[in-house]
Amino acid sequence: MKIRIGIFGYGNLGVGTAQAVRDSPDMELKGIFSRRALPGAFYRAQELHSFRDALDVLILCGGSAKDLPEQSPALAREFTIVDSFDTHQHIPAHFAACDAQAKQGNQTAVLCAGWDPGLFSLQRVLCSSILPGGVQNTFWGPGVSQGHSDAIRQIPGVLDARQYTVPNKQAIAQAREGEKIPKEKAHRRLCYVAVQEGADLENIRTAILTMPNYFAPYETEVVFTTEEALRTGHRALPHGGRVIHTGLAGGQTQKIEYMLQLSSNPAFTGAVLTAYARAAYRLKKQGCFGGYTPLDIPVCLLSPDDRTQLYQYL
Amino acid sequence: MKIRIGIFGYGNLGVGTAQAVRDSPDMELKGIFSRRALPGAFYRAQELHSFRDALDVLILCGGSAKDLPEQSPALAREFTIVDSFDTHQHIPAHFAACDAQAKQGNQTAVLCAGWDPGLFSLQRVLCSSILPGGVQNTFWGPGVSQGHSDAIRQIPGVLDARQYTVPNKQAIAQAREGEKIPKEKAHRRLCYVAVQEGADLENIRTAILTMPNYFAPYETEVVFTTEEALRTGHRALPHGGRVIHTGLAGGQTQKIEYMLQLSSNPAFTGAVLTAYARAAYRLKKQGCFGGYTPLDIPVCLLSPDDRTQLYQYL
Repeated sequence: MKIRIGIFGYGNLGVGTAQAVRDSPDMELKGIFSRRALPGAFYRAQELHSFRDALDVLILCGGSAKDLPEQSPALAREFTIVDSFDTHQHIPAHFAACDAQAKQGNQTAVLCAGWDPGLFSLQRVLCSSILPGGVQNTFWGPGVSQGHSDAIRQIPGVLDARQYTVPNKQAIAQAREGEKIPKEKAHRRLCYVAVQEGADLENIRTAILTMPNYFAPYETEVVFTTEEALRTGHRALPHGGRVIHTGLAGGQTQKIEYMLQLSSNPAFTGAVLTAYARAAYRLKKQGCFGGYTPLDIPVCLLSPDDRTQLYQYL
Repeated sequence: MKIRIGIFGYGNLGVGTAQAVRDSPDMELKGIFSRRALPGAFYRAQELHSFRDALDVLILCGGSAKDLPEQSPALAREFTIVDSFDTHQHIPAHFAACDAQAKQGNQTAVLCAGWDPGLFSLQRVLCSSILPGGVQNTFWGPGVSQGHSDAIRQIPGVLDARQYTVPNKQAIAQAREGEKIPKEKAHRRLCYVAVQEGADLENIRTAILTMPNYFAPYETEVVFTTEEALRTGHRALPHGGRVIHTGLAGGQTQKIEYMLQLSSNPAFTGAVLTAYARAAYRLKKQGCFGGYTPLDIPVCLLSPDDRTQLYQYL
């Protein structure tokens, strides 16, 4: 019996997740659901309810800003769900809402199952538990930040934009030596921006450089280019980052570093969601209902291998 | 109520573990047990049984060659235990023996809770679950291998030895590009050896270079030195290594790397054992009896932080 998977949302993340599910021999992709009308073997969102008994796990591939805060709690009672909700400050509320719904419906809800939050969270807790009192830094990039690209696109006169987050090499070296670096000092922001004909470039540049939170605290560079150049030269969505933790054990310095270098952020995040879908399926079968995050799930549940095969990794 | 810890075995690993337990505000070190008579607040091994109700977790700090295969199963019925058993090919049998005893005694046995096996195992399963079909390499060192140092000490004429395992930088670069490197090509072995006066150096060098499994398949260098130089210049026990995994998601290359750089192997391993002792205590309280490895334990159980505090890491 294969694990019957549904995917809700078919943007970049949905495409990446569908690929990872198709690459998993123990899974069967039963349906992709979208609010948009899409050609081919797709279903509309309103058809989801009729799939209640046909799906073991529903993977939610919407965005954290608008989609998941509404969709995850709304679906967690009827379906065992997995999402990659990533708005850090709203995680406790999101967890509480989904946990309550899942418990009422005897379902399992695995939340924040991407790479940050997700794999990085797991590494941060692991490091902090083994070397308490240590110094922990997280670096992001080099890679495209969708949130920052979107923020630039809101500026009047901007047609399209791509923002690369670039970690500072010297800051990485300092982190390895046990220094805590403010994230504004640890990263710079490189923005490729296409504007309307006749737009005031200096106004737009100033609007970016002074944007609070997003750009103002960072060293930021703005490069103007064409829509065509963005489409052709910046199609990939690479990303990655690292968690660096240094601390003392026995009075002596110990260093831990975890690094991701991703050619495609949505394809990798889809692969993480897919592994956690396997865990969600198993947790539900064991009667473990309610909310879970990657911190709460043993890694053996992510693997298609059985107990005997897992010994090869020990 | 603090977690009441006992430590059995007081070599380098026992010393490192005792330090980590003393550094944990939620733990109390109730006793250190040794087969040797030690001065100070120590107990003899035969006194262990009278501590049955005074200890929540017993951390076993003996060696994997002779101590743990006997001690872990023998104690797993009476105590909730943690060990760092690391003889890879004997793990299934060791697990089965301890699992059976622990289940009979309603105890929990956490096994292989060091860094390899242990943290590295966890990373290997995590990578393989997310990027199945990828290429995985593990590198060890630079660091002192106790097993290889001991092997040299068995050679007639040798007084003392220290063997450093050194990973090959080029092999690490190749691993990052997705190549599978045989471990004999990925490492070289550097041996500092002190010999008896008048010993035949060339005979000893040949005995090392041709030793099967340990040295013969590796590029090996032998440096003769004095006992005094080994005592003063090679006292530290640094170690470390890295797990490198590359694979495809969405048809695009994704790279994961996990790295440990340890000034003191026994102090770090003691810190890992201590974090897993916290998990063992919680598992037993939850009625989860029997054998566990780091693959079977969610990282939230390692942390002294409660649910609300853990959100900071998400």
